[in-house]
Amino acid sequence: MTDRVEPRTLKGFKDYLPEEERLRLKIIDTCREVFELYGFLPTSTPALEYLETLTQKYGEDEKLIYNFKDRGDRDVGLRYDLTVPLARLVSQYQNEIKFPFRRYQIAAVWRAENPQKGRFREFTQADADIVGVESLSADAECVALYYEIFKRLGVENFKIRINSRKVFDKLAQELKLGTEQTAGAIRIIDKFDKIGQEEADRLLEEVLNEEQFKGVKKFLQEDSDFSELDELKKYLDGLGVPNDVYVFDKKIVRGLDYYSGMVFEASVSHSDFGSLGGGGRYDSLVEKFSNKQVSAVGMSVGVDRLLGLMLQQGTKLPIPATKVLVMNLGSEFVEKSLEILNQLRTAGIASEYFYDQKDLDKQFKYAEALNIPYAVLIGDEEMKKNGVTVRDLKKREQETIKLPEAVNILKKS
Amino acid sequence: MTDRVEPRTLKGFKDYLPEEERLRLKIIDTCREVFELYGFLPTSTPALEYLETLTQKYGEDEKLIYNFKDRGDRDVGLRYDLTVPLARLVSQYQNEIKFPFRRYQIAAVWRAENPQKGRFREFTQADADIVGVESLSADAECVALYYEIFKRLGVENFKIRINSRKVFDKLAQELKLGTEQTAGAIRIIDKFDKIGQEEADRLLEEVLNEEQFKGVKKFLQEDSDFSELDELKKYLDGLGVPNDVYVFDKKIVRGLDYYSGMVFEASVSHSDFGSLGGGGRYDSLVEKFSNKQVSAVGMSVGVDRLLGLMLQQGTKLPIPATKVLVMNLGSEFVEKSLEILNQLRTAGIASEYFYDQKDLDKQFKYAEALNIPYAVLIGDEEMKKNGVTVRDLKKREQETIKLPEAVNILKKS
Repeated sequence: MTDRVEPRTLKGFKDYLPEEERLRLKIIDTCREVFELYGFLPTSTPALEYLETLTQKYGEDEKLIYNFKDRGDRDVGLRYDLTVPLARLVSQYQNEIKFPFRRYQIAAVWRAENPQKGRFREFTQADADIVGVESLSADAECVALYYEIFKRLGVENFKIRINSRKVFDKLAQELKLGTEQTAGAIRIIDKFDKIGQEEADRLLEEVLNEEQFKGVKKFLQEDSDFSELDELKKYLDGLGVPNDVYVFDKKIVRGLDYYSGMVFEASVSHSDFGSLGGGGRYDSLVEKFSNKQVSAVGMSVGVDRLLGLMLQQGTKLPIPATKVLVMNLGSEFVEKSLEILNQLRTAGIASEYFYDQKDLDKQFKYAEALNIPYAVLIGDEEMKKNGVTVRDLKKREQETIKLPEAVNILKKS
Repeated sequence: MTDRVEPRTLKGFKDYLPEEERLRLKIIDTCREVFELYGFLPTSTPALEYLETLTQKYGEDEKLIYNFKDRGDRDVGLRYDLTVPLARLVSQYQNEIKFPFRRYQIAAVWRAENPQKGRFREFTQADADIVGVESLSADAECVALYYEIFKRLGVENFKIRINSRKVFDKLAQELKLGTEQTAGAIRIIDKFDKIGQEEADRLLEEVLNEEQFKGVKKFLQEDSDFSELDELKKYLDGLGVPNDVYVFDKKIVRGLDYYSGMVFEASVSHSDFGSLGGGGRYDSLVEKFSNKQVSAVGMSVGVDRLLGLMLQQGTKLPIPATKVLVMNLGSEFVEKSLEILNQLRTAGIASEYFYDQKDLDKQFKYAEALNIPYAVLIGDEEMKKNGVTVRDLKKREQETIKLPEAVNILKKS
């Protein structure tokens, strides 16, 4: 005999029961629909990578990678994002890929982070990337993707914040910040909204000398004037992205080390869900796997974070999955019932059978609990009349009719 | 400076470039479509589980679980299948779930197996399960799902082999086989097709005494007569599953320890892809996580295996993803081009822009490589005429017309 094992999920990991999962799949489907409308092609990379593929790309966040030794004593890691594996893929298949390479991938990633509200150790990202393009029109497309996805999902009050790493890099040059200082300062500025002005100042003072600190503070307070951002705006206008859904914000720098140009982040005002996704240009990432420098820009939607927000905003799935419950009126009717079930499904009507023989009250309660709108019954009465009874479970009305007629009615309703 | 990292995937892991991935997604979409038509609801469980959740359920295959210690010193494992996590889920949320619980999940699983043709260490399973039902009509639905999915995907020559563990259990009782002996014999019979008669005999002789060995041999050679299978056949008739797509086969026992009743396996004759999926009844699995015995039956499609087979059978995706390439005739037309792009997409036409300014020949070659059927051009000529040029890239014909007319034509073609 096996001892009973306590049924439980790991800290930071989450199960999705049908109601939530259906909404989660709707988000995933919408992302995919938009990506394909925008001409992106799907790719897939494994969950596990050689650890060396993942390291030295994320900065201090690298310590959050789930890593271990596999049975062949290889150092492996669960992917931390979908961007670094893409850079690996681009380099590995550079002779098979047609450039410009426009791809999407919707998949789970893993981070050993401290779980917080809407923040899990396993979560799904929907990523679109354009590889092999320098033009800012590609960056504009990434921003347009957020707009189109959020609009279709009915997300309220979202804002896309845009900046360029080059803006800060220029300042870093003026203030003579070293590579480590620049990366450090960027990570602190990225956390500004989370940690607040005071703590950000304290951390910046640790990384910078007095003059540099003053320079950075002044820079963050001043409005900037940056030609790249104006060009981006022009393209966003062309793509039909309204002016009021995006804003240029110098504090958006994105924490990961690999960004090199435009960076963007989507969020919702007055929400405690933080970032709903981010992205940017990473023109030097592919180079880490090959001798070639390949331009690239990408965007990512945090699917589970977005799900949390949509549930908070009161989004519901309007349609139940199953339309008809074929009821079980006893073992003598099983075959006939299954035949009816088959007819309904052949007509494209999502239907199921109540397999076990239980009293009709229990079967109706099951249909009600699952929001199934119709029931079809076949018993002695119906057999005699050579028909089936169709019951509208909301209106509590029923009629006995021929099967083809029932199929027709149910298909239309 | 970072050293360059060699771009490579782990042994037994696979990348999918767009062409393959589009077919893989078609398989996944078809499974989901059929599951939903049959009234199954989606669920999702994490990739990582407490190791104790996964152990003592798979028999000797347990050694193939990817396991490690996480940062909190917990013993964790990557899921080996989707069935054991489902049993954990059912027990954990038994008060929230409506029974009968009909769910599906399409997700990756990991097994540290020796990679072979069509056999990977990471692969995607499409599972449907019915929990809380004893009736064999539920088992019949699982078989019907295979039929419907394979039919829709145009898979040729598939066969669903069906048996019941109870058939062998009855024999085991007659031959006085202990629990370990029964499990051992089942694992050997499961591998029969792979290892051959001689090796199977050798292994069986190791596990059984002479009398038991003779009894098992005789049993496997004889035709059986089993009432449960007749009942199943009746239901399959009702569900419209043709007689010639399934067969009762005593050698189908499925290797995993948790099966308790019906077992089934789908494969294609004269193919080296082995099993395309399997399933069966596992009435005692939920019990391992709670004191309650809960009946359950499920089926699983091996998505990547099926992909390999379909590629071998010559399946191609008929439609390219992108329909229109908006060409880049110079920086002065970018905004106008993006506006056209936006109009096309608003009309639901999958379109993309050639971001970087390259000569038209390169742009045409890109469209050709990706099988994009139409191009839209806007340059000086078109601006003067207040129109756009639509080019049919297959017929190599083009005409300059007004944008709304172009949108209309492209939408219909």
